[in-house]
Amino acid sequence: MSQSPRNGAPVWVGVDVGGTKVLAAVVGEDGSLGRVARRSTPGRSVEPRQVEDALTEAVLEAADGAPLAGVGLAAAGFVDATGQRVVFAPHLPWRSDPVRDRLSEHWGTPVVLENDATCALVAEAEYGAARGARSVVLVTMGTGIGGALMLDGRVVRGAGGMAGEFGHMQVVPDGAPCECGGQGCWEQYSSGNALLRAARSSLGASTSSGQAGGLGGSVEPGPTLMEQMCEGNPARLTGPMVTEAAAQGDLVARRAFAVVGDWLGVGLANLVAALDPELLVVGGGVSAAGDRLLEPARQALSRSLVAASHRVVPPVLPAALGPEAGLIGAAVLCRRRVLGGAQE
Amino acid sequence: MSQSPRNGAPVWVGVDVGGTKVLAAVVGEDGSLGRVARRSTPGRSVEPRQVEDALTEAVLEAADGAPLAGVGLAAAGFVDATGQRVVFAPHLPWRSDPVRDRLSEHWGTPVVLENDATCALVAEAEYGAARGARSVVLVTMGTGIGGALMLDGRVVRGAGGMAGEFGHMQVVPDGAPCECGGQGCWEQYSSGNALLRAARSSLGASTSSGQAGGLGGSVEPGPTLMEQMCEGNPARLTGPMVTEAAAQGDLVARRAFAVVGDWLGVGLANLVAALDPELLVVGGGVSAAGDRLLEPARQALSRSLVAASHRVVPPVLPAALGPEAGLIGAAVLCRRRVLGGAQE
Repeated sequence: MSQSPRNGAPVWVGVDVGGTKVLAAVVGEDGSLGRVARRSTPGRSVEPRQVEDALTEAVLEAADGAPLAGVGLAAAGFVDATGQRVVFAPHLPWRSDPVRDRLSEHWGTPVVLENDATCALVAEAEYGAARGARSVVLVTMGTGIGGALMLDGRVVRGAGGMAGEFGHMQVVPDGAPCECGGQGCWEQYSSGNALLRAARSSLGASTSSGQAGGLGGSVEPGPTLMEQMCEGNPARLTGPMVTEAAAQGDLVARRAFAVVGDWLGVGLANLVAALDPELLVVGGGVSAAGDRLLEPARQALSRSLVAASHRVVPPVLPAALGPEAGLIGAAVLCRRRVLGGAQE
Repeated sequence: MSQSPRNGAPVWVGVDVGGTKVLAAVVGEDGSLGRVARRSTPGRSVEPRQVEDALTEAVLEAADGAPLAGVGLAAAGFVDATGQRVVFAPHLPWRSDPVRDRLSEHWGTPVVLENDATCALVAEAEYGAARGARSVVLVTMGTGIGGALMLDGRVVRGAGGMAGEFGHMQVVPDGAPCECGGQGCWEQYSSGNALLRAARSSLGASTSSGQAGGLGGSVEPGPTLMEQMCEGNPARLTGPMVTEAAAQGDLVARRAFAVVGDWLGVGLANLVAALDPELLVVGGGVSAAGDRLLEPARQALSRSLVAASHRVVPPVLPAALGPEAGLIGAAVLCRRRVLGGAQE
């Protein structure tokens, strides 16, 4: 791949490869971001090449002609302990492909590959909500739930690099089927997809108000704000629409956040029982809703946590770096590794 | 408290303060055990003094006249990060009492206080099933479920010393009420108490075979082995009776183990999703049943674990040190701290 550098200073590019979209940007040493390039993720059933073409486009757009110092990839899936492969990713087509080396060769620059949530935690600990904390659980709510752990100041990757897959902890026996093959996984109840499902099912109910035995008093007259936004077609509803509708007072949207937030707190209580962190940070796209999501989560955490009256219930903070946390952390990791600094 | 040393060599005594019993023994530097002294735990609603009197009796009996070099206490509850207090213990009367210093003064010897599961993990890593492993989750099944974590070779205590309380992770929404005040906690479905409940409810069913609409073909003719053991009174049934009856082929007892073992595996899958350890060790009294408990747990783990086909499912091993693991680890910790060695 040839480049015509308009600018002599090589840049570190971070890329977030999520279940629905790819984000890429140049990340400065102070954590500042260049313009963010966006692409849709082609899906899980395409050829890996199609995802990699989208990555290449996003990286080129982000670098905007500058030479690459290195690229950090934050992937929504299991990354092996050596950081060479995506071992498994429910929403991506990679299956143990040697992604890192293939892209490094293709792009002619060092590439670091890491789980997206681990990247986000690295970023939050460096520039964001977890600065100064030594014992942190990060939960990222995007399409599903990811997560990452820092205990006693060190990121925990697990024996096989798979720690932090909180979204697939079972919270309901024989519960909702999950794309991972399991049932009742936490992310079926608390995630971007869960939020959409909750909102869509309520929409369906309130648009079918002619049915006998409907929701009675809770059915609102005329189309709701969310119905207007999606033009009466629940399939067109997006997470940002639900967030916006809730902000503007739509009751159905607010109810969806209350449900998903409550489940968030139940799962957080499980993590606190197991790990006793000093701080919980919630990131990912859904966390843009802020306290609308986090306040019901805090209430459920206090309600569900063992011995809550005998301990300090850890604060639940929104991630400070927004949806770009993953790509920022990936760029930080790439920079550190290429420059030979510390590993986290 | 005066002692008349019959023997010049001071001894390290480990004490396990469990929900139903106190165990104490001298622990040699090679992990060897002296004779184990046993007392009943007076319960959760008595004065702390009564528990402490039982501890004193057990320590005296274990030391058998030898001078004390130090006592390690493994307590079935939350121990604060400084190791001075039991902050909260569902089955014990201590509530933030300064237990360590009070007993140290009373006994005239150094005392170390630590969570019982953390002690058991220290012992298993030193002498038992986890030797050589760097990333281990220990689950102890006694009256309830306790647990402890070692990640990257270091014991994880949590920000407030409360990590590893796996038994109070919720596995069933609005499930069985727990002594902790929560509902649906894991230990309500997989623990010594859960095993007894499962066995007793089946006993009740099979002894009431005259009821209309009973269990039909699954009702066995005549009293079962477990019924003989408890003389037809389910309240007299104990965990060891269920274990023994299962070993001798009692179907009701075997079914109870299958149910509790399955729930064990479901919870282990949650811990593996979150922490990705290389090894799972199951200790506590119930683990004496060995594969009768662990085989259904392994099956449920493989069934429930996210991406099981894309990863090495960690082995589930029985603790090697039996019900004395906690007191052994407590003595190891006391010896290390008094002699100024490493903290774990």
